[in-house]
Amino acid sequence: MSAFTENAFLGGQLILRQPAKGYRAGVDPVLLAASVPAKDGQSVLELGCGVGTALFCLARRVPDLTLSAIEVQQGYADLARQNAALNGIEADIVTGDLSDMPASLRDRQFDHVIANPPYFDRAASTRAQDSGREVAMGEDTPLDDWVDVAARRLKPKGFASFIHRAERLPGLLAAFSGRLGSVQVTPLQARVSRDAGLVLIRARKGGRSDFRLSAPVVMHEGTHHESDADSYTARIRAVLRNGAALEIT
Amino acid sequence: MSAFTENAFLGGQLILRQPAKGYRAGVDPVLLAASVPAKDGQSVLELGCGVGTALFCLARRVPDLTLSAIEVQQGYADLARQNAALNGIEADIVTGDLSDMPASLRDRQFDHVIANPPYFDRAASTRAQDSGREVAMGEDTPLDDWVDVAARRLKPKGFASFIHRAERLPGLLAAFSGRLGSVQVTPLQARVSRDAGLVLIRARKGGRSDFRLSAPVVMHEGTHHESDADSYTARIRAVLRNGAALEIT
Repeated sequence: MSAFTENAFLGGQLILRQPAKGYRAGVDPVLLAASVPAKDGQSVLELGCGVGTALFCLARRVPDLTLSAIEVQQGYADLARQNAALNGIEADIVTGDLSDMPASLRDRQFDHVIANPPYFDRAASTRAQDSGREVAMGEDTPLDDWVDVAARRLKPKGFASFIHRAERLPGLLAAFSGRLGSVQVTPLQARVSRDAGLVLIRARKGGRSDFRLSAPVVMHEGTHHESDADSYTARIRAVLRNGAALEIT
Repeated sequence: MSAFTENAFLGGQLILRQPAKGYRAGVDPVLLAASVPAKDGQSVLELGCGVGTALFCLARRVPDLTLSAIEVQQGYADLARQNAALNGIEADIVTGDLSDMPASLRDRQFDHVIANPPYFDRAASTRAQDSGREVAMGEDTPLDDWVDVAARRLKPKGFASFIHRAERLPGLLAAFSGRLGSVQVTPLQARVSRDAGLVLIRARKGGRSDFRLSAPVVMHEGTHHESDADSYTARIRAVLRNGAALEIT
C-alpha cells in the first residue's frame, strides 16, 4: 500500500486515510456505526476494523467510549492507528487474527462488539487483484468464527452489531443461533421496492427475546435511479452527513 | 367439532365450512395461496391443509390444477372434503400424518408443495382449550420435518411455498438449508414501520440462486390503527377481495 487518499466522512467530522487501491470504505461501516446502541462510558471492540471507519464514526457520535479493535492486515491496522491520531481519537488497535485472539483482548469483555465481515465467499468468487483487498473482502475466517469471537468477548447483556450482505442472512442466523439471543434483523434496501442488499443484525449475549425482523431502512428516494444528484432519504442523509444515529426500535 | 360456520373468502368466490370453535382460518392461508407461482396444468400438495383454505383459494385463482393435501386431524380433513364439494373443486384430501406419509402421496412428486405450519411452539406456549385447535396451532411435528417432507415430495425445480410467523425465521431458514435452494423471504408487515409479523418463504428444489430478502408486503395503510373501517392496502385488498395474485418478483 503505497498510495493513499484522505476522505471526509460524516460531513467532514472525520477524515480517513485509505489506500488508493484495494478495499475502500463505503457507506456500510458508517451505517453499522450509526446503528450501534452504545452509551457514554461503555467499551466497544471492532473485529476486522480495516482503516477504522465504523469504530471512528461511532466515536464521533458517542464521544466517551473505550475503543478497541483487531485487524489482521498490518497495513490496514497501521492506517487505523494513523486515522485515530489524525482525528484525535484514542483507540487500542491490535494487529492480529481474530481466530487466534491476542491475550490483551482475550482477557477482556466489552459492552459492544461490532463487525463488518468480508463480503465475498472466496470459494464462490474470483480472486481480487489487490492482495489487501482480497483479504479485506474475501473470507479466510468463516462467519461462525466472527460470531463466536463476538459472543466470547461480550459482557453478559452486551450487544453484538454486524452488517453484512443480505444473501448471507441464512448463514449469519445459523452462526448467531445458540451463541447470542434476542436477534434482530434490519434489512437495508436501496429503494422501497427492491430486495434488501444489506442486513444489520443486532443480538444480545444471554438475550431471551423472540427473533425480530424489523421494517427495512430505505436508502434512496423514489423507485429507480433518476439522476446523479444525491437521492438519499432524509433518515440516511442525517446519518451520512450529520453523524446521526440510525435508530432501530 | 359439533358446531360449524360457513364463511365467505375472496369476496364470496369461496365458501368455507369451519368449526365454530377451534382453529379458524384468517388471512394467512389466503396470502399463502396468493403467493404460489402455480400455473395451469400443474400439481399441488398442501401439508396440513386444515379445512382447505389455502388449497381452495389457490384453486380459484388457477383453475386447472391437480390438488392434493394431507391433514392429520380427521375432523378437519372431513371438512376439507366437504368444502371441496361445496365449492365444486376436485381435490384428493388424505387423512394422515406427514411424518408417516401415506403411500398414495409418498409415491408422487408435485410441482408445488405449500404449507402454513402450526404457529406456536408447544414447549413454550400454554395449551389451547380446544384439542383440535391445539393440534392445529401447536407443533407436534418439528419445522424440519415439514420442510423435509416438502423437499421429498417436490419434482426437480418444483417450488415450496410456506407462510409462518416472522419470529420463526431463523428456524425456518435452518430447515430449508441443504434441502431446498433459491430461498426467497418476503416479510409481511401490518404497517409500514412495524416489524414483520409473518414471512412468506419460497424455495426451489435444486435451486442454486442466492438467498433473497425481498421488500416487505404492507397489509394496512397508515402508521397506526385509526378506525374499524377496512384499512387494507390496495395490493392486499385485491388479494383478499378479488382473489388476485400476490406477485413476488
